[in-house]
Amino acid sequence: MSSHIQLTDQGKLKHFLTIEGLNRELLTEILDTAESFAGMSEHQVKKVPLLRGKTIVNLFFENSTRTRATFELAATRLSADVMNMNIATSSTAKGESLLDTIHNLESMHVDMFVVRHALSGAAHFIAQHVAPHISVINAGDGQHAHPTQAMLDMFTIRQHKKRFEGLKVAIVGDILHSRVARSQIVALNALGVDEVRVIAPKTLLPAHVKTMGVIPLHDMDEGLSDADVVIMLRLQKERMNSAFLPSESEFFRCFGLTEAKLKRAKSDAIVMHPGPINRGVEIASSVADGPQSVILQQVSNGVAVRMAIMTMTMRSLGGMA
Amino acid sequence: MSSHIQLTDQGKLKHFLTIEGLNRELLTEILDTAESFAGMSEHQVKKVPLLRGKTIVNLFFENSTRTRATFELAATRLSADVMNMNIATSSTAKGESLLDTIHNLESMHVDMFVVRHALSGAAHFIAQHVAPHISVINAGDGQHAHPTQAMLDMFTIRQHKKRFEGLKVAIVGDILHSRVARSQIVALNALGVDEVRVIAPKTLLPAHVKTMGVIPLHDMDEGLSDADVVIMLRLQKERMNSAFLPSESEFFRCFGLTEAKLKRAKSDAIVMHPGPINRGVEIASSVADGPQSVILQQVSNGVAVRMAIMTMTMRSLGGMA
Amino acid sequence: MSSHIQLTDQGKLKHFLTIEGLNRELLTEILDTAESFAGMSEHQVKKVPLLRGKTIVNLFFENSTRTRATFELAATRLSADVMNMNIATSSTAKGESLLDTIHNLESMHVDMFVVRHALSGAAHFIAQHVAPHISVINAGDGQHAHPTQAMLDMFTIRQHKKRFEGLKVAIVGDILHSRVARSQIVALNALGVDEVRVIAPKTLLPAHVKTMGVIPLHDMDEGLSDADVVIMLRLQKERMNSAFLPSESEFFRCFGLTEAKLKRAKSDAIVMHPGPINRGVEIASSVADGPQSVILQQVSNGVAVRMAIMTMTMRSLGGMA
Repeated sequence: MSSHIQLTDQGKLKHFLTIEGLNRELLTEILDTAESFAGMSEHQVKKVPLLRGKTIVNLFFENSTRTRATFELAATRLSADVMNMNIATSSTAKGESLLDTIHNLESMHVDMFVVRHALSGAAHFIAQHVAPHISVINAGDGQHAHPTQAMLDMFTIRQHKKRFEGLKVAIVGDILHSRVARSQIVALNALGVDEVRVIAPKTLLPAHVKTMGVIPLHDMDEGLSDADVVIMLRLQKERMNSAFLPSESEFFRCFGLTEAKLKRAKSDAIVMHPGPINRGVEIASSVADGPQSVILQQVSNGVAVRMAIMTMTMRSLGGMA
Repeated sequence: MSSHIQLTDQGKLKHFLTIEGLNRELLTEILDTAESFAGMSEHQVKKVPLLRGKTIVNLFFENSTRTRATFELAATRLSADVMNMNIATSSTAKGESLLDTIHNLESMHVDMFVVRHALSGAAHFIAQHVAPHISVINAGDGQHAHPTQAMLDMFTIRQHKKRFEGLKVAIVGDILHSRVARSQIVALNALGVDEVRVIAPKTLLPAHVKTMGVIPLHDMDEGLSDADVVIMLRLQKERMNSAFLPSESEFFRCFGLTEAKLKRAKSDAIVMHPGPINRGVEIASSVADGPQSVILQQVSNGVAVRMAIMTMTMRSLGGMA
Repeated sequence: MSSHIQLTDQGKLKHFLTIEGLNRELLTEILDTAESFAGMSEHQVKKVPLLRGKTIVNLFFENSTRTRATFELAATRLSADVMNMNIATSSTAKGESLLDTIHNLESMHVDMFVVRHALSGAAHFIAQHVAPHISVINAGDGQHAHPTQAMLDMFTIRQHKKRFEGLKVAIVGDILHSRVARSQIVALNALGVDEVRVIAPKTLLPAHVKTMGVIPLHDMDEGLSDADVVIMLRLQKERMNSAFLPSESEFFRCFGLTEAKLKRAKSDAIVMHPGPINRGVEIASSVADGPQSVILQQVSNGVAVRMAIMTMTMRSLGGMA
């Protein structure tokens, strides 16, 4: 899937579909813009009028209360009008095609689609077909990408480590099925970290994983050694079957993050997780709630990062005064 | 059902339940008011404060994402507060009667009910029982009426044909079960078109169809001949059974709109459909997406027309400054 | 469950979880504040900017369209942003714990949780664990409490009877399973009514009912005699089984409120019910719709009382300018 579609001729962000093809400068602009929104959450009135009168549609073909909530809050705090559409239970039941649904909504003069879909490439496909004044934000498409999640992770890393140069980042778990991991790996490399390691059993690594710019490892002790950042992935139980891994407890023994294993990382390493966490499956409660965990800060940063991306795409489409 | 209930003593629109009983002057006022809102969708800030502080309840006893969305957008762009209530899954499950639900909501000082219900006459029944300061808008009741859909269709026809006099309009498909067709026929006659033809197999026409002021025909070639406007109806598969028609492909062969059949109409005829469309059942994709199709403009106009009706009813109830 | 958690060190309302532990002065402050909002529903613009920029989350683990609607309207009329989360069908399905859900939402910098839960103590538990700037409002927890309902009932009683001193109040029906009754009894005693009687078959009274400060009675004639206020409870059919009562019609014969039985009460007695009512089960239609019924006024007052509680908790947390 080409990533050029998400940029204007001037190289500005028009859609936000994937981290691929975005250069370090643009990713840094997103992080800087998010920084200006991050402080706002402490204000008495958590609202700015930047997107007043804009209509943002949360188009969720796959249920996700938490992700929908952060996008809804981000839009509301920019003073946009938000319309939630849960399409799983909706007019597709009447046999309407995806494109007909999109064209109908765009005829109502909406300004942005936030799209969550179980199929890889769905947001990309929609962006190819929407009217030129509409922006599409990918809120997770199949096993392909979850770029706003990756950017909030980058924001959180920069918040704690100040810079990306020289960092060793370990991503642990089901890399094979994770759209989050895929987006993180591209972002980390674009932002210039020293090393991205992926740690997983062979059955949970993609076939040509090395071409992604990572070091694949199968042992936690080796993988976490001297790491600055440890990112645990959610074990997508619903996507797994017995062919991939023996049991939850066996997985936890080998790849779950415990206080003992975390000692292999640098003493000031931060522990991240995209949530929702499976306590005792991929991460011990004592680590998730421990001093090195920044899991809840990731959630906070998610609102600011999404406000930044919404504002940047609307601005580049000329949709702001 | 008496239509007088929807007018004030001064003949102003108080509820909007059916086209029946509304004269040409009032229908034209709706179209003119909608025209003032139609341009607004292009503005940077698509909002006017006309209904600020009003509470509009989308009371949907029958699921319809698309219709709910246009009403929600119309209300939001008038700065009203919208509350969506999907009653199918709600307190009626606790055995409360429809009237008790209505009286409870009106006790919360809401200003407008937008009602969708599977039973003919539901909106009318509610209008008879609400407090005098509340307006009821019919968003589709059983097989009875869908008057806002009919008015957006009239708006679209006037947009393209400038006037109603002299127009030949063909409505094709399942007239028998269609609340849309019923409302369109009344509106077209009130606005003074030359001829309304309905084209359908006999099993899909009401018994006394001629009393509705239409010419019933069973052949597409004859029916489309010299038509200025062709309105295709959705084949409500869920309402059909084998007694009414042989098969989808047989229906398409006889009554589906193809480019070849469309050639019988005037060369500048417009093609309309209330959506969602069944491609290849009642309409060929090449026609739905072709140069004569105004299907997506109907959707756009739907927001403006609903804004007009909401504003007019609130104004006549004295609910606006 | 300790009630001190809901007060600040200065004795101001921080959370609203239960009536227990709140003194007469504070309850009166709620009623007085609600009074200032009650008139607002008549205004052209039913909105004040008191909670502008605040985010209020309706966290409903148990479905309740009606209660959710009154809280949504109350928040909207205070200009807060409302986010509805129906958790029954949501991320708890992904196995996330209640506390993880709460901590995630609070990381998004929300200001208030309105909580409905089938388990007694749920709102209390959440209040014990939220960040100090967040307020928790109990919108009904299991069979424990429904304090906003009790306060709107008190508001309605004061509206009609002016004072609580000297009043005889009869509560009729399934006291055993009713969180509403539990909260009402505490409130009525705190506000200084003369007598609270509970009228029910023995199987529907709690074991140590006398310790609650009520007079238990099993006969309607005796119970309603000279009452100033008659509160009928909803018969929670879904919670009942045959062990508790013989049949609906038998229940109505013994404990249903009819015009004849109501004659035992004072001639100016008011009849209340938390809704939704089961006509012909616990109350005759002629009484529910009769001149002594204030059931719909209770609903109206519910919006004003919830506005008052939301405003008071936000103010005591320093969240208002």
